[in-house]
Amino acid sequence: MIGRLNHIAIAVPDLAAASAKYRNLLGAHVGQPQPLPEHGVTVVFIDTGNTKVELLEPLGDTSPIAAFLERNPSGGMHHICFEVPDIRAAAEVLKSGGARVLGDGSPRTGAHGKPVLFLHPKDFDGTLIELEEV
Amino acid sequence: MIGRLNHIAIAVPDLAAASAKYRNLLGAHVGQPQPLPEHGVTVVFIDTGNTKVELLEPLGDTSPIAAFLERNPSGGMHHICFEVPDIRAAAEVLKSGGARVLGDGSPRTGAHGKPVLFLHPKDFDGTLIELEEV
Repeated sequence: MIGRLNHIAIAVPDLAAASAKYRNLLGAHVGQPQPLPEHGVTVVFIDTGNTKVELLEPLGDTSPIAAFLERNPSGGMHHICFEVPDIRAAAEVLKSGGARVLGDGSPRTGAHGKPVLFLHPKDFDGTLIELEEV
Repeated sequence: MIGRLNHIAIAVPDLAAASAKYRNLLGAHVGQPQPLPEHGVTVVFIDTGNTKVELLEPLGDTSPIAAFLERNPSGGMHHICFEVPDIRAAAEVLKSGGARVLGDGSPRTGAHGKPVLFLHPKDFDGTLIELEEV
């Protein structure tokens, strides 16, 4: 079912500082900040050639990563995203196998404009997994 | 400097259970367990086509991931590994830029038999970064 690792997301308290470290210390291919107010984050993509690292900074008062950064003020790895060919079929397989899909259990439109869902981290070894239909 | 994302490592309390979930619920390409006693872990690789997920379970009494699993009993994302062409050059650039290389600051032989180093997570937004020479 799951295919490529689309990205790994890292929540950071200071996007400009984090971007500068990846660009200047690690010599990575770091993109420009993209504010996504409807998703409560500003995003910077790092292109590693085979996949992406997504740096996330909270945007607005109801950011979905605010609570994570309260628990982890220095930042930290937030989620990993795998590609799937059919998100509704994936949701059915997962739910019938006992995995919990976050929210109302239905796919929604993710930060990249594609259908996504998130799986409960307690069902996958403390790891928040996003599935994205591509 | 950094190139491909070689793998993301997830520490898990029960490697057989974690492998079964990735294989049966997520339909992933999950390999066989590889005990690496000299590194204190048993490893299972998941091939995502473009990169790998590495599931890590402690092995022996002095596992380097034992403390992480004490803090995170359900498991969690442990580190990400980027490929570099020259690990000694990378170490020099990073140290001269103020980043801390763990251990004595010199590359050592990693779990895949290649030269690796780890960077202090406090210098990279709470994320433990491994660099591997390929």
